[in-house]
Amino acid sequence: MPIGPGTLTVIAGPCAVETPQQALAAAQMAKAAGASLLRGGAFKPRTSPYAFQGLGEKGLKILADVRAETGLPVVTEVVNVSDVELVACYADMLQIGTRNMQNFALLQAAGQAGKPVMLKRGMNATIEEWLMAAEYIAQRGNLDIVLCERGIRTFEAATRNTLDISAVPIAQLLSHLPVIVDPSHSGGRRELVLPLARAAIAVGTDGIIVDVHPHPETALCDGPQALVGGDIRELASIAQHLPPIVGRTLTPAPELAPTG
Amino acid sequence: MPIGPGTLTVIAGPCAVETPQQALAAAQMAKAAGASLLRGGAFKPRTSPYAFQGLGEKGLKILADVRAETGLPVVTEVVNVSDVELVACYADMLQIGTRNMQNFALLQAAGQAGKPVMLKRGMNATIEEWLMAAEYIAQRGNLDIVLCERGIRTFEAATRNTLDISAVPIAQLLSHLPVIVDPSHSGGRRELVLPLARAAIAVGTDGIIVDVHPHPETALCDGPQALVGGDIRELASIAQHLPPIVGRTLTPAPELAPTG
Amino acid sequence: MPIGPGTLTVIAGPCAVETPQQALAAAQMAKAAGASLLRGGAFKPRTSPYAFQGLGEKGLKILADVRAETGLPVVTEVVNVSDVELVACYADMLQIGTRNMQNFALLQAAGQAGKPVMLKRGMNATIEEWLMAAEYIAQRGNLDIVLCERGIRTFEAATRNTLDISAVPIAQLLSHLPVIVDPSHSGGRRELVLPLARAAIAVGTDGIIVDVHPHPETALCDGPQALVGGDIRELASIAQHLPPIVGRTLTPAPELAPTG
Amino acid sequence: MPIGPGTLTVIAGPCAVETPQQALAAAQMAKAAGASLLRGGAFKPRTSPYAFQGLGEKGLKILADVRAETGLPVVTEVVNVSDVELVACYADMLQIGTRNMQNFALLQAAGQAGKPVMLKRGMNATIEEWLMAAEYIAQRGNLDIVLCERGIRTFEAATRNTLDISAVPIAQLLSHLPVIVDPSHSGGRRELVLPLARAAIAVGTDGIIVDVHPHPETALCDGPQALVGGDIRELASIAQHLPPIVGRTLTPAPELAPTG
Repeated sequence: MPIGPGTLTVIAGPCAVETPQQALAAAQMAKAAGASLLRGGAFKPRTSPYAFQGLGEKGLKILADVRAETGLPVVTEVVNVSDVELVACYADMLQIGTRNMQNFALLQAAGQAGKPVMLKRGMNATIEEWLMAAEYIAQRGNLDIVLCERGIRTFEAATRNTLDISAVPIAQLLSHLPVIVDPSHSGGRRELVLPLARAAIAVGTDGIIVDVHPHPETALCDGPQALVGGDIRELASIAQHLPPIVGRTLTPAPELAPTG
Repeated sequence: MPIGPGTLTVIAGPCAVETPQQALAAAQMAKAAGASLLRGGAFKPRTSPYAFQGLGEKGLKILADVRAETGLPVVTEVVNVSDVELVACYADMLQIGTRNMQNFALLQAAGQAGKPVMLKRGMNATIEEWLMAAEYIAQRGNLDIVLCERGIRTFEAATRNTLDISAVPIAQLLSHLPVIVDPSHSGGRRELVLPLARAAIAVGTDGIIVDVHPHPETALCDGPQALVGGDIRELASIAQHLPPIVGRTLTPAPELAPTG
Repeated sequence: MPIGPGTLTVIAGPCAVETPQQALAAAQMAKAAGASLLRGGAFKPRTSPYAFQGLGEKGLKILADVRAETGLPVVTEVVNVSDVELVACYADMLQIGTRNMQNFALLQAAGQAGKPVMLKRGMNATIEEWLMAAEYIAQRGNLDIVLCERGIRTFEAATRNTLDISAVPIAQLLSHLPVIVDPSHSGGRRELVLPLARAAIAVGTDGIIVDVHPHPETALCDGPQALVGGDIRELASIAQHLPPIVGRTLTPAPELAPTG
Repeated sequence: MPIGPGTLTVIAGPCAVETPQQALAAAQMAKAAGASLLRGGAFKPRTSPYAFQGLGEKGLKILADVRAETGLPVVTEVVNVSDVELVACYADMLQIGTRNMQNFALLQAAGQAGKPVMLKRGMNATIEEWLMAAEYIAQRGNLDIVLCERGIRTFEAATRNTLDISAVPIAQLLSHLPVIVDPSHSGGRRELVLPLARAAIAVGTDGIIVDVHPHPETALCDGPQALVGGDIRELASIAQHLPPIVGRTLTPAPELAPTG
């Protein structure tokens, strides 16, 4: 299921996997929102060592169960070189997070894992550095790379980070790689997610990756930016109706293989 | 001709007024692009005192002639308190540029000039400071203020400035003022103008302000970002077809008053 | 009394002039701290129009009285073109503040006022833009310009601004102008003022400009960064003992002319 | 040999270890400059995978030989979790570089290696995030941590990064850890190294880490910022004469154990 030319791919799911129930509910929301890929973190890199660090392999198993139930392939973050093989066993796509964009050993290990890699832009990285980081993956023979713009660090404090919307057309001009946008982590505020998702589609992104959560108010991670309720229907409508204005169509979720 | 709810206003024209021919040609391009307001600088604040500073009053007269010819009202920048009255005689809307966002005397003078004011965000200003700057205008009894996001200064050097697309919904949430976007000065690159214009409309802006020039290669100011040729038709198409996806319609150019 | 090669000039005083008593007390603190110039704002550019804007001409008169009493020449900010003549009547040096670094009309008016000009760096300005702004003053025939580094805007929120200490040697390399440092406004925290003053002297600055206030807790402007009490003696000691390590000597305060 | 209260530690050496001759010559320059610790990179994290990546274990062996010859303990960077044990065999102190400040697995591994750790501030990291990163090391039972300010990323392009000199007193206020400064990598320009070193000592740093190279013009990494020739004597003089002004004394190089 390629991400790229002529299509818009929606990736959605919970920031962190918390319980089987939460993950399944979030995946169903993701599907309702038009997603063809499920996101969800089992290993969470956190600023503080005392914050929730994710469920680890238990989280990966939950993701695999939810994939079986919903048919949605899974993209999940890997933060340690020593976890790459494990994560690659469960995931359909590996995510390299913003703090690890220049963790070159991790890039190289991900490049050898035999799975597509989504490379988030460092919150302080220039576009050029981001593309050079992708070279570390490509150098190991893996050209199945998706770039993800997720906001950069600036002086403006009204948003968690500043979504650099211009980075999408620039990275597309400078490389052959698909470029997706994370409107949830860049703004860090629920009320910005849908406007930024619209902006991303209109600017010509190849996909968007969005946090959803059945109960954002009790989420263990980044609840304030997760979509819920009516926002899900609104996202589905955007994902359906906007792509044609830039000559794209929404990538549908894969069919669930008939069981038995 | 109000800017705001339910509509999208296109403002276009040359960065600087250079000659009557250039200004008229640019205004016709602006009209073809869907503009209902003409932009054009007669007083140009430049980093270097040795760069072209604009034609001054001669430029204002050219703008007035072009308005008579095309019917397009004129928005033009004022940089000195002592020029406010003069500029207000010729212009339909005063522009306060990014370098003057906290030139409080100029804000107050503009607030008393009896004309609408477009306030560009300082390239280093927080959204909160931008709204406080608008207070300096409002305090003088002028509530006819349009905010214009035009990019902020960050570490990223691939663009002249970083368009802070999130500032549009945030400023709309925090104030009652219309917020427009300048995709030309933020990116500083022609190939970014249309993608950023689409993003701006999709995020929900009340208008866009775009540089056009009949001969960008010989422009005295900011030629590399001016639209020309087929881009004009493309902008017209965007301005026509995108606003409905966010519940807006393009504000048409005013009818030309019959002469004689 | 030149600022520059081989000397270190200390400028000190209250952020804003509030009353004759406060201004005189602050000037005496300034003198005790080793200052040979008195700073003090009569016109204060404030982010909000509802914040204290300074005493205006009344403040200038207080500064002139304090100069007569203490012998300290006065540097004070001018924010409006229309006030330049008035301020130049009272002040010995005009200050252009950070928000006005690219207020070109003000730079030109200050360049014609017949008084030395201190040009603060814009909080978002590159060193190159700062030097070009100085050109606007020099172009009017006034070469008596002092550059003042006062911190730039970055993502770091622990300080009000980030003192760009490297800007001192760079601006000295690129121009012939003296470069001073404001450790009070850059950090915005009292506990940083003396360390940053030491760093500035050691890097090779031509002067420092420091906020002092007899009662910081009731100051109308920027009290949290004003020095008081034992810090004054400490500053005097620094100003005395550090300059020799970079081949400089403290510029003494002018003798008080004998009265009668 | 503790780094910290009452002392100033100079760390110097080549950016990258290239040959035994180059490393030894650089170590002798370091010693002449007043250094009590030798820096030198065997594993170099580079933006591009096609740039020189360091000599690896061969470089570590060279460093060990140079230590035997000069008596200077060695600090060297580790970039991969899988190299931590190896590097800890050879090095006296492990360095975590700016790109890895939030490589949490690496921090934890370094925390368990039984050697002191120098933690460089991420070029985009707030002071608070830097201290939280140190927690990841401390949490593994290693409290022998040295913080290193090496410049942050801002809009100013005249320097490679902007040395945040205020970070030194702030990090010292907020934690008990020693804070050193890298004037070479922050400015990225030879002519800034000595002024910034003076500023760092005057602000109250616990140490400085400086690039030196016998032949900067042919250096494989960061030659333009390496000190050479007369600058070495100048650094020695600064390191000798400045610390007393902030109540510190230079930490001497360890005695060479008598051989045979």
